[in-house]
Amino acid sequence: MSHSVTDSTVLLGHGSGGQMMKRIIDEVFLDAFGSPELLEGNDAGVATLPASGRIAMSTDSFVVSPQFFPGGNIGRLAVCGTVNDVATSGANVRYLSCGFILEEGYPMDKLHQIVQTMAETAHEAGVSIITGDTKVVERGGADGVYINTAGVGEVPAGVALSGANCRPGDVILVSGTLGDHGIAIMSQREGLAFSSTIESDAAPLNHLIADVLSAAPDTRCFRDPTRGGLASTLNEFAQASGVAMEVDEDAVPVRPGVQAACEMLGYDVLQVANEGKMVAVVPAEQADAALSAMRAARYGENAAIIGRVLPLESGARPAVRVRTGWGSTRILDMLVGEQLPRIC
Amino acid sequence: MSHSVTDSTVLLGHGSGGQMMKRIIDEVFLDAFGSPELLEGNDAGVATLPASGRIAMSTDSFVVSPQFFPGGNIGRLAVCGTVNDVATSGANVRYLSCGFILEEGYPMDKLHQIVQTMAETAHEAGVSIITGDTKVVERGGADGVYINTAGVGEVPAGVALSGANCRPGDVILVSGTLGDHGIAIMSQREGLAFSSTIESDAAPLNHLIADVLSAAPDTRCFRDPTRGGLASTLNEFAQASGVAMEVDEDAVPVRPGVQAACEMLGYDVLQVANEGKMVAVVPAEQADAALSAMRAARYGENAAIIGRVLPLESGARPAVRVRTGWGSTRILDMLVGEQLPRIC
Repeated sequence: MSHSVTDSTVLLGHGSGGQMMKRIIDEVFLDAFGSPELLEGNDAGVATLPASGRIAMSTDSFVVSPQFFPGGNIGRLAVCGTVNDVATSGANVRYLSCGFILEEGYPMDKLHQIVQTMAETAHEAGVSIITGDTKVVERGGADGVYINTAGVGEVPAGVALSGANCRPGDVILVSGTLGDHGIAIMSQREGLAFSSTIESDAAPLNHLIADVLSAAPDTRCFRDPTRGGLASTLNEFAQASGVAMEVDEDAVPVRPGVQAACEMLGYDVLQVANEGKMVAVVPAEQADAALSAMRAARYGENAAIIGRVLPLESGARPAVRVRTGWGSTRILDMLVGEQLPRIC
Repeated sequence: MSHSVTDSTVLLGHGSGGQMMKRIIDEVFLDAFGSPELLEGNDAGVATLPASGRIAMSTDSFVVSPQFFPGGNIGRLAVCGTVNDVATSGANVRYLSCGFILEEGYPMDKLHQIVQTMAETAHEAGVSIITGDTKVVERGGADGVYINTAGVGEVPAGVALSGANCRPGDVILVSGTLGDHGIAIMSQREGLAFSSTIESDAAPLNHLIADVLSAAPDTRCFRDPTRGGLASTLNEFAQASGVAMEVDEDAVPVRPGVQAACEMLGYDVLQVANEGKMVAVVPAEQADAALSAMRAARYGENAAIIGRVLPLESGARPAVRVRTGWGSTRILDMLVGEQLPRIC
């Protein structure tokens, strides 16, 4: 990484709207992101969007602690998180905004590294960062760096994915191993040493989604199981669709190191956060095609069919249950409160 | 304001992705914002956008301290700031995202009030909040509440505004009095008492911009002079266009209370932040039409023509000068560093 940034730490003046702010924008942000829209230097980025008539928009703020961890940093999360959220609508993700909240005194070389990672991840995802904002707060006003991204894409005609679309008989797929991100952060934060380093799975999944949608055009919905893990995603789907769901525990891909860490820490891996996984619900007759497309896509090699959608029994409320390897079942609830603060 | 929120303060669990997060979303955000796109409950909001083929996008994070001040609160700023930034492109502003970073322990009724203000301001501006995100950080990880908004609008065919478009002979307008926001925050923060309360000017100016653009279709550019004030805006225009600019100090509208406060505090009012003012550069022959349109628009009653664009003298670099009431001139520079941290 070669760069020449005039200031070695972030100073309050970098958020001033004056000459110092121009300097951090020129030296750190424009240098890395460099889209024509940003270089134009106006308050809004103006960009083309094919005329499908519908857009998808999503946003996430990232406050992960620590900012650097095995498998990535807050910059990779900030791009992947929003790209994946927009992509769940079936949209072709095109543009990102990014807003930085920086703590006075944050090392400029770390910021540069984060920004460089954002640029690389945006390039990998095929999206452009077209507008941004920088605020600086005094020491103690934030913990290093917080990043917000918002993303926009165009939704192709005829695509209308929603968590409310699940129907009894549908099949549930996941694009790979669960729990990697949450356990990677937790290990790093608490200085836990497991036999092998567990890496965050943070990855942009927009191309994987496009491939699945092409192979299984009647896909009901996608969602990336971030905070709250698979448990939150499936409970949200079940409630929105008014159905029950059943997961075969043995079918859920989990790395042995993650499984061991969860047992040690007392976590249910189905409630642990992921940042590079996608859950899909598809009609049964397209399940094999969806699975093949996932496995053929980058980041999807461990994809699996993990369960099914069931009708609600009369009088029952929407719920998710897990069928264990022993043949017993248990209810998979959403987390009540906080398991791992500042996981993303 | 009537509401029933289960929890009296923000807790870490409200950012968990689990049941407590669902509760704060349902009780605080959906209740106030309630757009169909949000109520759909998916990770991305999907909305229609007429097929102009071009969008404008902008983002700002808001970290203002204090969060409540005469004339508004951080919620009003968060909506107006992004609406105005998107509108400067000439776009019809349509959709906002919002991302909250909340400090554990923040009073829920204050959050509710901020969110209510955002909903009212969005309604006034005619924009919908279609997607959002909530993160909670531990005590000391933020100062109460930080808000990011991003906004999207469609740019009508033929509209191509840019700070690089200014030409010698053009006329500079401002939509009202300068310095109100910066001095309102500063007074509130430092407990300064002036003879009259100075209120923030935070206001959505998208309708004012549309009116000016309709009356003066060859308008070169708009920009809202926030951090860095008029000085930053005009220096940015001058540099982007490779021109000189001249401001008639006596023509700049300033409230007497703001003028007095600036003199007391040693500020140049032309460098103080505004949150409800628009600078426009228009060709001379459309200046009167632009001025009339501004004055007829809401928030534009004190609009004025304040200066002109001049050719660069040979060998000179782009600069802005102020002609004082005494006939002398001075250079109006961008602020170097920070004048008023966390002004927005």
